[in-house]
Amino acid sequence: MVTLKDIAAEAGVSITTVSNVVHNRKSRVSPELVRKIEKIIQREHYAPSMSARSLANDQSNIIGVITHLTPQNTGSTVGDPFMSSFVDSVEKRIREEGYYLMIRAVEDAAELDSLSRSWRLSGLILTGMFQDDFFQTTSALGIPYVLIDSYVEDPEACCVLLEDEKGGYIATKYLLEKGHRAIAFASPSIRPGGVIEKRFIGYRRALEEYGIPFDPSRVFTQEITVEEGKKLGRQLAGRTDLTGIFASADILAAGIMAGLSERGVNVPEDKSVVGFDDNYLAQLTVPCLTTIHQDAKRKGILATDLILKQLRHEPIEEKNIVLPVYLVERGSVLPLR
Amino acid sequence: MVTLKDIAAEAGVSITTVSNVVHNRKSRVSPELVRKIEKIIQREHYAPSMSARSLANDQSNIIGVITHLTPQNTGSTVGDPFMSSFVDSVEKRIREEGYYLMIRAVEDAAELDSLSRSWRLSGLILTGMFQDDFFQTTSALGIPYVLIDSYVEDPEACCVLLEDEKGGYIATKYLLEKGHRAIAFASPSIRPGGVIEKRFIGYRRALEEYGIPFDPSRVFTQEITVEEGKKLGRQLAGRTDLTGIFASADILAAGIMAGLSERGVNVPEDKSVVGFDDNYLAQLTVPCLTTIHQDAKRKGILATDLILKQLRHEPIEEKNIVLPVYLVERGSVLPLR
Repeated sequence: MVTLKDIAAEAGVSITTVSNVVHNRKSRVSPELVRKIEKIIQREHYAPSMSARSLANDQSNIIGVITHLTPQNTGSTVGDPFMSSFVDSVEKRIREEGYYLMIRAVEDAAELDSLSRSWRLSGLILTGMFQDDFFQTTSALGIPYVLIDSYVEDPEACCVLLEDEKGGYIATKYLLEKGHRAIAFASPSIRPGGVIEKRFIGYRRALEEYGIPFDPSRVFTQEITVEEGKKLGRQLAGRTDLTGIFASADILAAGIMAGLSERGVNVPEDKSVVGFDDNYLAQLTVPCLTTIHQDAKRKGILATDLILKQLRHEPIEEKNIVLPVYLVERGSVLPLR
Repeated sequence: MVTLKDIAAEAGVSITTVSNVVHNRKSRVSPELVRKIEKIIQREHYAPSMSARSLANDQSNIIGVITHLTPQNTGSTVGDPFMSSFVDSVEKRIREEGYYLMIRAVEDAAELDSLSRSWRLSGLILTGMFQDDFFQTTSALGIPYVLIDSYVEDPEACCVLLEDEKGGYIATKYLLEKGHRAIAFASPSIRPGGVIEKRFIGYRRALEEYGIPFDPSRVFTQEITVEEGKKLGRQLAGRTDLTGIFASADILAAGIMAGLSERGVNVPEDKSVVGFDDNYLAQLTVPCLTTIHQDAKRKGILATDLILKQLRHEPIEEKNIVLPVYLVERGSVLPLR
């Protein structure tokens, strides 16, 4: 069997150089040399054994993107627009840096522990809400990990977060500035410590600033699906007391708009709507959706880079990255006369 | 170090039973026994080494979902609604069956060859268009593979396809039956042997049946992005000669509808639109989109099952699965008076 050493000897280069070509870190090698080495590799039909390497190095070069299976989320990993955009960006970054991506949904901390140790995963990107024992398990593994959209207390944990509270605040404040006073809050279930709770807190802070008492009958929670969103839209069509709606996700906002439209209620003439995410849906609704911008692709890049920096023992300036949000003004809000 | 055998001995069960629990094939074991075995595993902190197992079995239990990097597709793996829904369903099925999912974009056949051999991948799911040398490389690997939406001649290759030609035909015929005669065809670039070409051939067949000469000025190709779709919608608003539009993807149809609306052209009153996919976008547009249904989740399940059957040496009744399409009538088409 041909080894890395054989290839290096024949090309007259170091083993590291061949390794860079083999593991797709080609930018570190001159194009000419890349061609020369690839030619030898192809002729000799060389493929490094990742399993052997994994046993030798005690890590696999696989980074896992882990989602949490719950009764509410029965198995979706990349099914929604945020996750598909986020994972897309992680795959690209990981590949460019010579690593490999495994995606996996797990039910509990024991499953994560077993998955990570049996594969000797090089790093973990945990998306969504997990209970505290997950974080204990994860940090006990002793491998780099990054938490996405998880509000945990541990200052040692690497996190990529969003200004969720501010997002909820500026969305609601925008509606208030346009004269709206009776504003609905629509979201999936508000779990303590989750991103939705932060956005909800922002909603309440804005109301408070304007001296508007919080009214629980204006809070609507349901699953994040198109069908549930449309159902809520049809329901909100009957709530003539409400003039503004803040939805915690664009897909929910788009569903609400479709449901309102089915009942002959026009946006923004009859009701104003603000979303959250600024994904492509916000540009497909008619009118286009005024929404809070977050950058899912950038989240993916930053999360991957935090893992890579740990793997390479590079200094990490910021363990807690909080991405900024801002409001994008489009056509779904009208000032209240 | 604790071995599988130790756990089995302590639980008083076979190694296979412990293995089923470890590799998440829990449905084959009684809940009571699962709990008992998991308790021992946790106490003993047991994790099987996948690398050692991979070296011993000459396969890793990893199934790769591979996409093709092209100048048109610079790195997206799960970024679009079809792929996100497809991969979501593959991950779930693979997990339930005790396998693991790697997603990866590759540039050429050599990269696929090296990836597959170095990881000892257990199977490959190839999505999208590849050149012929890809299929030669893939079959030379000697591992199970499935081609998704690839029209290849090889009767030995496992494929999951769609009635693409029929989809194009019934979409166009539906518009013709409603009295439309000047019908646009909107799609990404029409590559020979690709799914879009099949849908295009269906479009032309329907026109021919109705004795309508093909007019190349009614064919519009552009990238599949929201922005390009909206641009095309604005452009089509000026084409008063055209009363019907068949778009080869829902995301394109939704973009076109948004672009038409920007120019004050109403769907379906001024122009009728038919899409293709029947993903969630078709229920978010106003009016809801009349479209050709395909089942991306089912494609994922069938593709995974074709790999698993090959791995388990089970008989395969159908190597070429062609999923049916049908038209879903919603609100975006009006009979032409």
